[in-house]
Amino acid sequence: MPLQIAKLDSAQPDFKRRLSALLAFEATTDESIDSAVAAILHDVKARGDAAVLEYTNRFDRIPGGAAGMAAFDVPQSELDAALAGLPAAQRGALETAAARVRVFHQRQKEELRDFSFTEADGTVLGQRVTPLDRVGIYVPGGKATYPSSVLMNAIPAQVAGVKEIIMVVPTPDGVKNQMVLAAAAIAGVTRVITIGGAQAVGALAYGTETIAAVDKIVGPGNAYVAAAKRRVFGTVGIDMIAGPSEILILCDGSTDPDWVAMDLFSQAEHDELAQSILLCPDAAYIARVEESLNRLLPGMTRRDIIRVSLGGRGALVKVRDMLEACEIANTIAPEHLEISAENPRRWADLVRHAGAIFLGRFSSESLGDYCCGPNHVLPTSRTARFSSPLGVYDFQKRSSMLHVSEAGAQTLGKVAAVLAYGEGLQAHARSAELRVKGAAGNAQ
Amino acid sequence: MPLQIAKLDSAQPDFKRRLSALLAFEATTDESIDSAVAAILHDVKARGDAAVLEYTNRFDRIPGGAAGMAAFDVPQSELDAALAGLPAAQRGALETAAARVRVFHQRQKEELRDFSFTEADGTVLGQRVTPLDRVGIYVPGGKATYPSSVLMNAIPAQVAGVKEIIMVVPTPDGVKNQMVLAAAAIAGVTRVITIGGAQAVGALAYGTETIAAVDKIVGPGNAYVAAAKRRVFGTVGIDMIAGPSEILILCDGSTDPDWVAMDLFSQAEHDELAQSILLCPDAAYIARVEESLNRLLPGMTRRDIIRVSLGGRGALVKVRDMLEACEIANTIAPEHLEISAENPRRWADLVRHAGAIFLGRFSSESLGDYCCGPNHVLPTSRTARFSSPLGVYDFQKRSSMLHVSEAGAQTLGKVAAVLAYGEGLQAHARSAELRVKGAAGNAQ
Repeated sequence: MPLQIAKLDSAQPDFKRRLSALLAFEATTDESIDSAVAAILHDVKARGDAAVLEYTNRFDRIPGGAAGMAAFDVPQSELDAALAGLPAAQRGALETAAARVRVFHQRQKEELRDFSFTEADGTVLGQRVTPLDRVGIYVPGGKATYPSSVLMNAIPAQVAGVKEIIMVVPTPDGVKNQMVLAAAAIAGVTRVITIGGAQAVGALAYGTETIAAVDKIVGPGNAYVAAAKRRVFGTVGIDMIAGPSEILILCDGSTDPDWVAMDLFSQAEHDELAQSILLCPDAAYIARVEESLNRLLPGMTRRDIIRVSLGGRGALVKVRDMLEACEIANTIAPEHLEISAENPRRWADLVRHAGAIFLGRFSSESLGDYCCGPNHVLPTSRTARFSSPLGVYDFQKRSSMLHVSEAGAQTLGKVAAVLAYGEGLQAHARSAELRVKGAAGNAQ
Repeated sequence: MPLQIAKLDSAQPDFKRRLSALLAFEATTDESIDSAVAAILHDVKARGDAAVLEYTNRFDRIPGGAAGMAAFDVPQSELDAALAGLPAAQRGALETAAARVRVFHQRQKEELRDFSFTEADGTVLGQRVTPLDRVGIYVPGGKATYPSSVLMNAIPAQVAGVKEIIMVVPTPDGVKNQMVLAAAAIAGVTRVITIGGAQAVGALAYGTETIAAVDKIVGPGNAYVAAAKRRVFGTVGIDMIAGPSEILILCDGSTDPDWVAMDLFSQAEHDELAQSILLCPDAAYIARVEESLNRLLPGMTRRDIIRVSLGGRGALVKVRDMLEACEIANTIAPEHLEISAENPRRWADLVRHAGAIFLGRFSSESLGDYCCGPNHVLPTSRTARFSSPLGVYDFQKRSSMLHVSEAGAQTLGKVAAVLAYGEGLQAHARSAELRVKGAAGNAQ
């Protein structure tokens, strides 16, 4: 059975409607999940460790036993042993990836600095950048365990200077993923606790007798974890709640069609809702890519997922030219954008919205997913219009610094008072005026 | 009747419990507000302008009339006229404040730049910073109209390079605030529409026939506006949803007690839930501040609000020393922190969490609220632990740039493949391997 994938042409009169139907994705909140999560969070907030123990026993089938919560703490020695025990190729790959991620994020850190400037009257204004104190990293367990996620979430926090990086990872039936533990050892995680689900999010957000409350929680999770993160937002910071992963490939027809086909697969294999779209001005080339897709599909281990994903949400789109392709890319604002073309920078300069831009035919998304260095946690579902890749800046915050001189208070005080009276805020005005020598009403 | 205000001492055995009870503030979501907002948003999404018109007629008592939505557009000439018509002192104060806010945020913009670096094999990695395309600014109408908010929300967007800055402001019964319109003229707002409430948030988030959908919505509003912003988050970006405003004053006892009292008032006058706290090691000085509070209160126009606010959520706290005061400040993570002391920088260096830090006795919060330059939109309710003042960075986003050379693809491809196979993602591995010359299975 040939692969089903939508074929669009930007010259079609109803192209815009078709494209927007293709992109439509409503993250529906399941009410039953949300209310189950509310109950768990409430329970963890009220009963602390006892609640976390009960839910972990129930959902992950791990008896806490006499050790209680201590049974869930993974000692550093176990992390080191996991790293030492990996096959050399895996260990080397993890270490290479971590080193590269660290270099890139170190560069990012240099960008965000304190500044201050002094005005003529001696007033000093500035901005101070400080790391968060304590961060929680959620790592999914069970069928989808991604050591690369550990690197991508923990290393920016470590580079930012976060002192405590607490990783939670559910281990259903007590089965621990050795690559995940090894990645934690490499990435500078300071504590690993084998709990998961809404109860782990609650424990990190509110704190328990044995877990100190964190300031921010990052990392992917299932629908329960996502609902819990939404609910604790405000008490703690959270990263974006990710939608399905997406790739958009702009190709001028000069790349081996097998490469493009495999790049589309690499996104589609994530899950049935992932989205893979190709934009190309060359109809004959699109046909060659389709031929590659059909020829390569039977050899893919995750072909059933790929078939559903490409059939439901994928598309091969004939565009007028590369210029139009860039315009459409700005509408889609994709998580991953590959510009597989001669002189890719020419087109990249026309793209305003994308989480990560892969330039040239050698820059496959999968290299970025694992080891180029830039983060693989990227804005999905068109949110690249207003948000950024996960970065060091997500683990830092700024404070404004204002040191007004006595002379500055004389001039600024009068300006502030006029505006404060204009807004009907008399105490604001008086507070400014009290610092002004001989201001009207100061004898009051 | 003397002012009621809690008096605490850090030497009390139950001080921590008392402090945490004082700080406790649960932003309760009113279910009836939330469901009303859900219905309005749904209606605006489905019916566009027609729904916005109906709700504006109903809630603000403004008939759209034959002009329809066009009746709500405020032409640039009307903004210019508002500015020209202001008393000279008000116009000058607005212009001075705007100029200072612009200078500070310009400095902030310089901090966030593109970067890229080239590796030995020719691979180029980097980060690109771009402004958002279109931003919505919500400005409350009715009793609380703050022109300073217009400056603080619009100027960072303009400095960031946002092309379209759309301000919505409800004008109940058609009454327009001239200072607000003048501030819009000064701050570079590109369009002003006199609509408000959840219907305005919906119109900005989803777009209508006459209003283009924006990428982010910022600005304060009532409970309906806050609920609407929460609901459209994801479709568009939003700023933080602010809790009640707070000030924490650390004083070594060397400042005129009237100044400190008035600074506490200036926060308390905002609303009954605002929080004003003084930390001081000198019990005699605290008594003098209390005397000032009682003496100055009768002269305050908003004394009824101040009395409730200080009585319900204010406190005068005796601490052991300034060092302990800094530790407590880190627990409170206040929106505004005044360090009214000799050598304030010494103490500021010990504070990790605060939205804005005002150093020295001449730096009253009210100067920062209006005209120092740094933003007055600051993280409340302990969120300064993980978030920052509103800034230019809120109107910019980053894209990662990855240009892998052919040589780079050889080495990176092998690393990526090992990790991808380790995670069971074969298409990711194959996508990397296809770019590696002579890799196993490339003939497949």
